Amino acid sequence: MKKYLIVGGVAGGATAAARLRRLEEDAEIIMFERGGDVSFANCGLPYYVGGTIKYRDDLLVMDPAAFKRLFNIDVRIYSEVVSVNPEAKSVQVRFGDTQYEEHYDALLLAPGAKPLTPGIPGIEHKNIVTLRNVPDADILHKLSHDYPSGRAVVVGGGFVGIESAENIIQQGLEVTVVEAAPHILAPFDTDIVVQAEDELRSNGVNLKLGDGVKEFHHEPNGSIKVELSSGEMLEADFVVLSIGVRPDTGFLQDSGIDLNDRGYIVVNEYMQTNFKDIYAVGDAVQTYNGQTSEAGSLALAGPANSQGRLAADNINGGQRKYRGFVGSSILKVFELTAASTGMNERALQRQGLVYGKDYRFTVTFPADHATYYPGAKNFTMKMIFSMKDGKVLGAQAIGPKGVDKRIDVIASVIRFGGTVQDLMDLELAYAPPFSSAKDPVNMAGYYADNIMQGMTNPLLPNELEAELNKGALLIDVRSPEMFAAGHIKGAVNIPAPKLRTQLDTLDKNRSIIVSCRVGINGYYMERMLTQHGFTVRNLMGGFSYARWFALDIQN
Amino acid sequence: MKKYLIVGGVAGGATAAARLRRLEEDAEIIMFERGGDVSFANCGLPYYVGGTIKYRDDLLVMDPAAFKRLFNIDVRIYSEVVSVNPEAKSVQVRFGDTQYEEHYDALLLAPGAKPLTPGIPGIEHKNIVTLRNVPDADILHKLSHDYPSGRAVVVGGGFVGIESAENIIQQGLEVTVVEAAPHILAPFDTDIVVQAEDELRSNGVNLKLGDGVKEFHHEPNGSIKVELSSGEMLEADFVVLSIGVRPDTGFLQDSGIDLNDRGYIVVNEYMQTNFKDIYAVGDAVQTYNGQTSEAGSLALAGPANSQGRLAADNINGGQRKYRGFVGSSILKVFELTAASTGMNERALQRQGLVYGKDYRFTVTFPADHATYYPGAKNFTMKMIFSMKDGKVLGAQAIGPKGVDKRIDVIASVIRFGGTVQDLMDLELAYAPPFSSAKDPVNMAGYYADNIMQGMTNPLLPNELEAELNKGALLIDVRSPEMFAAGHIKGAVNIPAPKLRTQLDTLDKNRSIIVSCRVGINGYYMERMLTQHGFTVRNLMGGFSYARWFALDIQN
Repeated sequence: MKKYLIVGGVAGGATAAARLRRLEEDAEIIMFERGGDVSFANCGLPYYVGGTIKYRDDLLVMDPAAFKRLFNIDVRIYSEVVSVNPEAKSVQVRFGDTQYEEHYDALLLAPGAKPLTPGIPGIEHKNIVTLRNVPDADILHKLSHDYPSGRAVVVGGGFVGIESAENIIQQGLEVTVVEAAPHILAPFDTDIVVQAEDELRSNGVNLKLGDGVKEFHHEPNGSIKVELSSGEMLEADFVVLSIGVRPDTGFLQDSGIDLNDRGYIVVNEYMQTNFKDIYAVGDAVQTYNGQTSEAGSLALAGPANSQGRLAADNINGGQRKYRGFVGSSILKVFELTAASTGMNERALQRQGLVYGKDYRFTVTFPADHATYYPGAKNFTMKMIFSMKDGKVLGAQAIGPKGVDKRIDVIASVIRFGGTVQDLMDLELAYAPPFSSAKDPVNMAGYYADNIMQGMTNPLLPNELEAELNKGALLIDVRSPEMFAAGHIKGAVNIPAPKLRTQLDTLDKNRSIIVSCRVGINGYYMERMLTQHGFTVRNLMGGFSYARWFALDIQN
Repeated sequence: MKKYLIVGGVAGGATAAARLRRLEEDAEIIMFERGGDVSFANCGLPYYVGGTIKYRDDLLVMDPAAFKRLFNIDVRIYSEVVSVNPEAKSVQVRFGDTQYEEHYDALLLAPGAKPLTPGIPGIEHKNIVTLRNVPDADILHKLSHDYPSGRAVVVGGGFVGIESAENIIQQGLEVTVVEAAPHILAPFDTDIVVQAEDELRSNGVNLKLGDGVKEFHHEPNGSIKVELSSGEMLEADFVVLSIGVRPDTGFLQDSGIDLNDRGYIVVNEYMQTNFKDIYAVGDAVQTYNGQTSEAGSLALAGPANSQGRLAADNINGGQRKYRGFVGSSILKVFELTAASTGMNERALQRQGLVYGKDYRFTVTFPADHATYYPGAKNFTMKMIFSMKDGKVLGAQAIGPKGVDKRIDVIASVIRFGGTVQDLMDLELAYAPPFSSAKDPVNMAGYYADNIMQGMTNPLLPNELEAELNKGALLIDVRSPEMFAAGHIKGAVNIPAPKLRTQLDTLDKNRSIIVSCRVGINGYYMERMLTQHGFTVRNLMGGFSYARWFALDIQN
C-alpha cells in the first residue's frame, strides 16, 4: 500500500488529495494543514469581511470529517510540517507540543504563500493585520465592526488590498489605500488602471499612490498613526497589510529541495522537484510563463488547482506536463469589472520589447452587446500584439459589463499562441442581448490587423503633445455638440460627415491628427485623408481614451 | 477609377461597402438594396415587435444619407438587381417602373436569404406574415397591437420563431408554436432543448411538436384556422411563418454564376464565385464547415460580416481566406440563455459517427460563479468530443447565467481545433463573482479526459432502463432528504459518505449504477467501487440530467 503525504490543504493540496484518492483507492493519504481549515474559499475572504458573503460557514467548502467520509483522506489540521528529509523519505510534523515523523512513498508540497510583512518600524500591533485565512478574516471582520465609523488603512494596492478596501468601506468606514508604486493593480497598465482608481475614488476610497509606509506609530488610545515616506500622516484604527506574498517554504530551507533565491520551490513541467518522489504545486512554486517560457511564479487559485490535479496524475505514474501560466486575473471594483490576461506593457518592456517596433496595441470602447438592445454598456479593452508575427500577447479590459467574457476568450486564444488573424476569425455566439455581430474581440483583431497592414498608424494620447508641438493640426471629427462639451485644447472641429467636402481648406504640407469619440470615425477619416495625399494619424481611442491622460481639456 | 457594385445592403453588403471605401477612396461604390432600408438591425426585429426595442429608429443603424456623407457610397434603395451578365460585367437594375444597366469592375453579391413560404393551401392571407425586414416587423408589430388579447400561431420553432413567440406573448396574446420536427431549435440536441421547451411552456407558450401545417382555412371574420397534420385545429388572428430560409438568388438563375442545387451561390475560400470579378457573401452563399470541411451554408450575422470584410480585401487585391464556419449561435428564451457552438449529436450522426465509439460527451451542471458568493446559478452544459483524438466537436449550454461566456470560450477552442486537454489547460480569469477556480470549461475538460483515460464510463439516462432490466443495481448516493423528494424508480439510497463503510452489503456479481445530484459524487463513488472490484457506471449528470428524460420518478 502506497503512502502519500500532502503538505497544505487549501487549493492545490486539497485538489491533489481528492484526485489521488480517485486514482488509488487503496493508498494511504494524509493531508497536513498548519491552520484549522482545509479547502476554504480563499478568494472569498474579503467578501466575508464585507458581509457580501454572510455566513462564515460558506467559506468552508469541505471540512476534515467530510474529507474522511467522502474520500477516506486523513486530514490533520493544526499540524505543521516542520522539516522534510528526502533521503529518509520522511517529514517531521508538529502538533501542539508534540512532534512526530511520517514516511512517504510520494510527497506533495502545497504550502502556499504568506503575506509579506516587511520590517517597517512599529509593524507589530494587534490592529495591523493580514488576510490569508479564515481566522484572519474573522479578525478583520471584527475590526470592521468594532470601529463602525472608524478609519482603515490598506497598505498595498494589489487584488487583496483593493478587494479589502471595497469591502471595508461598504461598511461605512473611512478607507485609505497606500501603494508604493505609481498605480495600483500591477497586472494592468497605467492607461487602464486609472479607471479602476477613478472608480475607487468615486466610491470614497482615498488613494495614496507612489508613497510607501515609513513607520507605524502606536498611539496611546490604541490607534495607529501611519507615517508615509512623503511625510504624510494617516490616522487608522486598524491597518490591513497586503503588500504581496512570499512562499511559505521556510521549513524546506535545509531539506536539499531546490528553492530559488526568493524561496519558491523549483519544479519541472511535471510539477516535480529535484527529488523524484517530491512534487510541489500552487503559490509556493516556481513554474514558468507559458508565453515566454521564462521561469516565474503566480499566486492564483486556478493554476494551483490545475497543478494539483496534474501532480496527482504524475504521482500515480502519469506523464502530464504543465503548459505554464498565462496570468489571467479579474476583480470587481465596485460597479466595474477589471480583468487581464497574458502580458501587459510593463512586462513586455522588462523583456526589452519596444512599443511600435516590437509590439503595438489597440484600445477600443465596445458595447457589451448590440447598442440597439436595451441595457448596453461600453467597456474599455486594450489588446497587445506582436508586430513580428501578430501573436496576441495580452489583453486588459475594464467596464461595467461584458469584460469577463472577452478576457476569457482572449486567454483561450493566448493558450493556443493565436494571432490577431485568429481574433478576426473567431466565430462567437451572437444575438442582440449578448454581443454584436462583430464581437469586441473580433473588432480588436480587425483593428490590430489594420495596424499590421499599415492601413492605420494610430497615435497614442501620450504622443499627442509632441506632434502638436511639431505643428500638426488636430481635427476633432465629432459633432459640434460633443466638441463643445469638451475637447483637447487646440483642436479644430470638422465633423466627419463634412470633412470630405472640406478637403481644399486643408494644408497638405501640415500633418494631421484626427480624433473622434472612440477612434472609429477617426480611422475612417484617416483612411480618407491618407488616400487624398495628406499625412495623417488617428488618435487611438479618441476622446474616450484621451480623457484618461493628463491633456489640456477645454470646453 | 474602379467601379464596384454591391447587391444587398444589410450585413455582409454594408460591411463590404464600408471596408472597400477605406481601401479605395477613389473607387465608385454603388450599393443596391431592393427594400427601403440598409444596414438595419436584422437580429433586433423580434425585439422591436415585442417592444423591448422601443423605437423603430433604433433598428436603423445607418441610412443611405449617412452612407453617402461618411463613406461616399451611393446607396440606391428600392433598387432591385434583376439580372447579372458576367460576360458584359454588368447588372440590370429595376427601380420603380424603370430599368437600367450598371457596369462593374467587381461585383459583390450579398442578397441574403428569404423566409420559406411553402405551398401550403391557404397560405396567401394578409395575416399570414414572415419576419425578414423592418416593414415585416412593422406589420407584425401592428398585428400584435391590433389583437391585444388575440391568438397567434408561429409556424417553425427556429431562432426567429422562438424569439417571435416570446415577444408576442409578452404583449398578452395567446401563442402557439408549431414545429414539424420532434423538437424546436435544431442546433440543440433533444436532451438540452427540452429545457428551452419547458421554459417556453412555463411562460405560457403552447408547443405543438412533431406536427406540421396541412392547411390554412380563411374564416369569414378574417381569422385563420390552422389545420395541423395531426388533424388538430388552431384558431389564429395571425400567423408568423418562420419555417426556414432559402437564398434570395432567383435573379442569378440564368447568369452562369454557379449555384448549388438549393440555390446557394457557390464560392471558394476567397468568397469568389466562378467568375473572378464576382464575389458573394452572407446568407445566400455556400461556404464550408470549418470543422468538417464539408460544403454548407449558415444564415448568421457574424459570419456574414466577417465574409464581407474579407471579400472587400480580396476585391482590393488581397488573398484572404475564409476559414469556414463553426456555427456558434445563441438566443434568449425568457429567463434562460441557450447557446451552442460546433456540431451537435444530430450532425455527427448524419456523418455516420456513433456515440461511444466515435464521440462521447459530458453533461455538467456548473454554477456560473463560485457558489459561496451570492447570486450563483447553475446551468447545463453539454460538451461533445472525439474519442479518436480528444478534439472538441461541439458544445451546448442552457441556463440563467454564464452560458454565453462558456460557449464563446469553447467556440474559440474549436477554431483552433483544440482538444479536451486544451479545455483542461485553459487559464481563465477567476474571482468569486465571475467564475470558479475550476471554470465550467475546465471541468468539462477534466470530465472528458476521465472518460478518455477510462477512469469513468458514464451511463446515459436513456441507457438506464436496459441496464436495470439486465439486473443492475441503481444506488442513489444523495442524501435521504433529496432521495425522498424524488428519485428514479427502483433506486436504493446509500448516501455517498456512507457507501465506503457498506461495501460488504453489496453483491460483486451484480453490476452497479451510481447516481447523485449532478454526477460528481457519483463519479467519486464509481471510482471507489471500481477499485474495490465492482462493475460500476456513473449515471451522467445524476438526477439533474435524468429528470429531463422519460424515466419513472418516485417520491
